[in-house]
Amino acid sequence: MVGAGQLARMTQQSAIALGVELRVLANTPDESAARVIVDTRLGDYRELADLREFASGCHAITFDHEHVPTEHIRALAADGFAVHPGADALVHAQDKAVMRERLTSFGAPCPAWARVSDISGVEEVSAFAAEHGWPVVLKAIRGGYDGRGVWVCRTPSEVAEALKSGVPLMVEAFVPFERELAVLVARSPHGQGVSYPVVETVQQDGICVEVLAPAPGLDPEEAAEAQRVALQIAHELGVTGLLAVEMFQTSGGLVVNELAMRPHNSGHWTIDGSRTSQFEQHLRAVLDLPLGSPSMSAPVVVMANLLGGDDPDLFKRYEHVMAHDPGIKLHFYGKEVRPGRKIGHVTAVGDDLDTVRARARHAAVYLTTGEYT
Amino acid sequence: MVGAGQLARMTQQSAIALGVELRVLANTPDESAARVIVDTRLGDYRELADLREFASGCHAITFDHEHVPTEHIRALAADGFAVHPGADALVHAQDKAVMRERLTSFGAPCPAWARVSDISGVEEVSAFAAEHGWPVVLKAIRGGYDGRGVWVCRTPSEVAEALKSGVPLMVEAFVPFERELAVLVARSPHGQGVSYPVVETVQQDGICVEVLAPAPGLDPEEAAEAQRVALQIAHELGVTGLLAVEMFQTSGGLVVNELAMRPHNSGHWTIDGSRTSQFEQHLRAVLDLPLGSPSMSAPVVVMANLLGGDDPDLFKRYEHVMAHDPGIKLHFYGKEVRPGRKIGHVTAVGDDLDTVRARARHAAVYLTTGEYT
Repeated sequence: MVGAGQLARMTQQSAIALGVELRVLANTPDESAARVIVDTRLGDYRELADLREFASGCHAITFDHEHVPTEHIRALAADGFAVHPGADALVHAQDKAVMRERLTSFGAPCPAWARVSDISGVEEVSAFAAEHGWPVVLKAIRGGYDGRGVWVCRTPSEVAEALKSGVPLMVEAFVPFERELAVLVARSPHGQGVSYPVVETVQQDGICVEVLAPAPGLDPEEAAEAQRVALQIAHELGVTGLLAVEMFQTSGGLVVNELAMRPHNSGHWTIDGSRTSQFEQHLRAVLDLPLGSPSMSAPVVVMANLLGGDDPDLFKRYEHVMAHDPGIKLHFYGKEVRPGRKIGHVTAVGDDLDTVRARARHAAVYLTTGEYT
Repeated sequence: MVGAGQLARMTQQSAIALGVELRVLANTPDESAARVIVDTRLGDYRELADLREFASGCHAITFDHEHVPTEHIRALAADGFAVHPGADALVHAQDKAVMRERLTSFGAPCPAWARVSDISGVEEVSAFAAEHGWPVVLKAIRGGYDGRGVWVCRTPSEVAEALKSGVPLMVEAFVPFERELAVLVARSPHGQGVSYPVVETVQQDGICVEVLAPAPGLDPEEAAEAQRVALQIAHELGVTGLLAVEMFQTSGGLVVNELAMRPHNSGHWTIDGSRTSQFEQHLRAVLDLPLGSPSMSAPVVVMANLLGGDDPDLFKRYEHVMAHDPGIKLHFYGKEVRPGRKIGHVTAVGDDLDTVRARARHAAVYLTTGEYT
């Protein structure tokens, strides 16, 4: 696995059970996954030579993030390495314009969108807004995450401000959504596919803070449609491994927002709440093993992210949360606390949404801020 | 954790989530846990100097096995290390005669028993049998496991044969049991205690092959009594960490058979079948953290051990089992296959005992022998 963040770290938990020997490529030996994986290699994922040395001897290569240059992935495949997802699939999670072109081509529901040229950006975007309405959403075509690289612009002057970022941009119509959903599917090289239940994701400042599984009150037909769209995207794009499809639920139906091709924050609930965690599923998919059951182990599962607060010493609050709720599941990423940084997550399971959600929220808020909710 | 077998390996899965930095003392770098734990130290657990060097800097010391000499554990505690379980507790899992003396002293249900002197062993045992009946069970006072160090003797000549082992022995009345049960409890240094549901263990040739959780058809009052006895033993012995109490169910009630003070084979089902795995629970207990919920995540959970067969290459059968049953959970210990060796386990969960048991058994038998059940 190229990259040694928390996704690789949690993948190790499943690799241990499956008897899979997991190797990671880390930038530094103190990264999240490097702390818990014996076969950690140090190197730069932007350097093909480092990637080649890392890949040597591996049965399959996969990724903890989407930042490996597409041409390096092609080079590894040309060397004969089994790379999952492959470059032709992964580019759709790396390049939002390529993704929109492709999804539009086979009718997956997308907002109106257009590329923005560097030179006459404000005029182009204003013309787009004249057709589709203000506000518009400017997005960095490559490299954005957790709300970075996304600008909701209400006026031409806000567009001009966003264009100062200097990176290639695209524009999308703003989608007046009711809520955000996510569908996590897996697809193996053999073509086997599986979908987890559709979840609701709750964002604050562009960062996912809470995931509700299954999405409360979602019409079963709309849930099935969301799963069908996600599996179709996985099939059309030739995804191997996990695919997370973030969607907007609108009064007019579902609209695809973003894609990720790796274990995803919206699937962390599966560690404690599904019979097959997304990390196990990803390993099974990229190793072309039969996929595991995505069924839930409880009627309601809520995951809440732990975003670092001002106090770096969590220990007393860690004890409190365990004492307060013996059923809460804690997941720490081995990262130093910094304000706003994802340092872990908590999961609660049960029968009643309000109760389970309150438990997860109490644990997350108290752990990170010392405040009660 | 002293020792780097599969128990330490599976403890690492929970340590990753809790953010606990797990260090192990291994004999060789290719042991089960050494393959998945970055902070692996090599050394000999029988050497106090190695133990002291290993322990330096650890917040707590615990064990993957019961073979560390009691006097070394006392020495580590005298050095100021937090050792859990402590020597005064652990000796009851190391020395079966000390265990029987102590349990008898506070009325825990035990079979009739006596120490056997080396010199006149056959006569002593025959006299014991004259009082309590044949057969009798001879046991090595220290060091036995998985049926080794236990001899069921029907005649004085079988006793003479067992005495040739040359190790200090004790004799116990043979208990005509209906089935074997196990109760896993945890106790923290604070004195908090928790009990998992009582399970049935199924043995073949002295080795546990299957665990049924909860013990099918067990009378709720007898289950509560078993849990009460196990918690009482943990309290009386001052256990810190996990305590597994193996019991015989007889027409006359429960009889304690063996004790273990560490994660135990009879608790492997908890990884997939309880909200808190025994490995997480052990870490919480030895670190004096509040204990986790022992509740089950499904009505029925069956664990079956994978005992190595003649064919060391499991891969095709591994694929088959995953394809056959997407809900089966596989756990491999990173060990080479040798006939009879515990190389992993499988777990099935569900609603119906017969179905769940058949699923676990199919997976275990097919994986290890290629035969269908």
